Amino acid sequence: MYVKGVNLGNWLVLEKWMSPGLFDGTTAEDEYYLPTQLPKEIYEERIRMHRSEYITERDFTRIRAMGMDAVRIPVPYFIFGDRAPFVGCVKELDNAFNWAEKYGLKILIDLHTAPDSQNGFDNGGISGVCKWSQEPEEVEFELSVLERLAERYGTREGLWGIEVINEPILEDMWETMHVQERYPAVDPEKAAGSKPNTIEFIRQFYLEAYDRLRKYMPEDKYVVIHDAFRLKAWKDFMREDKYKNVVLDTHMYLMVAEMAGCDQTIEGYVNYVKEHFEADIAEMEEYFPVICGEWCLFNSLAVGHDTKGGQTVLNGQEGMSEEAMSAEEKKAIYRAVAKAQLDAWKKGSGYFYWTYKMLTDTVNTEGWVGWDCWDLGRCVDFGWFPTRE
Amino acid sequence: MYVKGVNLGNWLVLEKWMSPGLFDGTTAEDEYYLPTQLPKEIYEERIRMHRSEYITERDFTRIRAMGMDAVRIPVPYFIFGDRAPFVGCVKELDNAFNWAEKYGLKILIDLHTAPDSQNGFDNGGISGVCKWSQEPEEVEFELSVLERLAERYGTREGLWGIEVINEPILEDMWETMHVQERYPAVDPEKAAGSKPNTIEFIRQFYLEAYDRLRKYMPEDKYVVIHDAFRLKAWKDFMREDKYKNVVLDTHMYLMVAEMAGCDQTIEGYVNYVKEHFEADIAEMEEYFPVICGEWCLFNSLAVGHDTKGGQTVLNGQEGMSEEAMSAEEKKAIYRAVAKAQLDAWKKGSGYFYWTYKMLTDTVNTEGWVGWDCWDLGRCVDFGWFPTRE
Repeated sequence: MYVKGVNLGNWLVLEKWMSPGLFDGTTAEDEYYLPTQLPKEIYEERIRMHRSEYITERDFTRIRAMGMDAVRIPVPYFIFGDRAPFVGCVKELDNAFNWAEKYGLKILIDLHTAPDSQNGFDNGGISGVCKWSQEPEEVEFELSVLERLAERYGTREGLWGIEVINEPILEDMWETMHVQERYPAVDPEKAAGSKPNTIEFIRQFYLEAYDRLRKYMPEDKYVVIHDAFRLKAWKDFMREDKYKNVVLDTHMYLMVAEMAGCDQTIEGYVNYVKEHFEADIAEMEEYFPVICGEWCLFNSLAVGHDTKGGQTVLNGQEGMSEEAMSAEEKKAIYRAVAKAQLDAWKKGSGYFYWTYKMLTDTVNTEGWVGWDCWDLGRCVDFGWFPTRE
Repeated sequence: MYVKGVNLGNWLVLEKWMSPGLFDGTTAEDEYYLPTQLPKEIYEERIRMHRSEYITERDFTRIRAMGMDAVRIPVPYFIFGDRAPFVGCVKELDNAFNWAEKYGLKILIDLHTAPDSQNGFDNGGISGVCKWSQEPEEVEFELSVLERLAERYGTREGLWGIEVINEPILEDMWETMHVQERYPAVDPEKAAGSKPNTIEFIRQFYLEAYDRLRKYMPEDKYVVIHDAFRLKAWKDFMREDKYKNVVLDTHMYLMVAEMAGCDQTIEGYVNYVKEHFEADIAEMEEYFPVICGEWCLFNSLAVGHDTKGGQTVLNGQEGMSEEAMSAEEKKAIYRAVAKAQLDAWKKGSGYFYWTYKMLTDTVNTEGWVGWDCWDLGRCVDFGWFPTRE
């Protein structure tokens, strides 16, 4: 098994920086606060239009033409439409399955958010809050979403697998990322009591989720578990025979490598990828098929200044207003880090690029120079990403 | 001069069939009636979201990567925001110029509609109405839009030219298309008095428009005139020395060839293109640089039934619910008609494919099988359109 894929980020789970038009006229920084700042009809219209235009049939033909086998689709906990004021999106996922099956792609459904959040990131739905795992009813709700997803899509030809929950955070990453400073909570009361999940909780959740998914999803479909940013913590996990086709997902970003001290030079990135990303995946591939479910070409060298772990104008950083590099220099950097990373993933069982598409306008809005490489479409257009490998 | 380009149809001038989500919950068939059926705030939100997501920076990088030199951008008469309830879109065009200049593309601004319409087509803005040329104040308004466009963009590096008005209809095409049956008017009173334009009017309008554009637009930028569906009627037009860089735009569709009796076989299309499209362009290239400003691969053979000139489920035709051909058969047809047409345009001065993108869902909505070829993105993805020629 080796999967080459791309994430459909920002389609059914929003990220402000990837689609600023959605947040126009509000101060909301995340999906949770968007409906609190808009009249109901406007909020619903905005979401409807976004979903109907952002990803459509033609994106599936494009992704196939890029040589990809699969898409990873982040979905929110309210996908089934039972958590007002949020709008469900199961119809959109239904459509995606029909497109995928027509054009020969597989879908990894990625349950990307949880009520009160599993990580406190903006892309977890509500910035600065991380309390989900302390709320048994919401944990059960999340399991019921997984079960319903399996029931609805478990036997679809287009299903590759279901990922139990995206990026549940543990203590180490909580500290490295300074989550509550980087993603300040809007409502301190709502955030009170936020803390990282425990690994004991995550393990227990994964075991329970496996059983709930397998009620409906045959064993030839993958159950995907995220490493919770601690790739090597899973050597003794799910060793029993009953666990079939469990895939371990790890997310590896050069901007995180930079925070760990990686040199911001081509050589620095390439060496770091080889010594850490590649070595760690090779080590863990002994225990599970390992995929790198999120990664991209982004790095501070190509941007032209240290982004301090990928912080943007939305985090109060200035950003670049002009290109720091020539087109040739950028191409050389991106091709080098693309090759190094693609080589690393080959020690495992595949990858999903983050992300297929974003609307961020690097020309007409200030401070976004260098962020276009998060968009696989643009990477392919510019010749930064080798579609024939 | 030879230009290879593509239209950004359905971005700033709407066509229901290309973006059904925009017309959701209404019975409107065209852009004119859309705001009459929606609350003002919903209408404006819908338009804003569509414009902010349908075409973005990444589409310009994609079009460049397809090997194109230019985009033709249809704009509405209300682009400057002075015709309520419609919403202006000059900001979007400003953005497009910045993208085009960054990524090495040129823009042909195409004034695509007029108040009370120049053709009665749905894409003229109001179905079944064709009265603009009988209304001197609206004729002057249209000229003022052209003048303002020239004033704003005339000296931009990214400007290729301005097209005076899209597809003003004359009597012959009015009858061939059965305009008032194909595009029934919603309000018979509003449609009363509709009739095709006269060629005398169109000629006079073109002369006046030329002068108004040249007040601001230097002579190295093109003034583009549409042939009003009568390509050979322009041999004695604008022969005087003062007219510089006037380009004649003709639109050539296989579905129109079918209405003229072209055999619905590969050989039939290829012969027809050679004998008519190519020969006519070669003949007129003696008088003007001739571009084919709209064309596509669409034909009834690949769809699997006679579409009677490209009529869809929106025209009450049934359409196909399953593919009539294998992928290989479709590819053979499309590649043959692509080659024939591209060869024909080479006798002139270039082309713009219609269109770059459409959202029409051929998988999840009934009756649209075969219509994907209007979308250049999909044509390239499927290998139907040769990007290296």
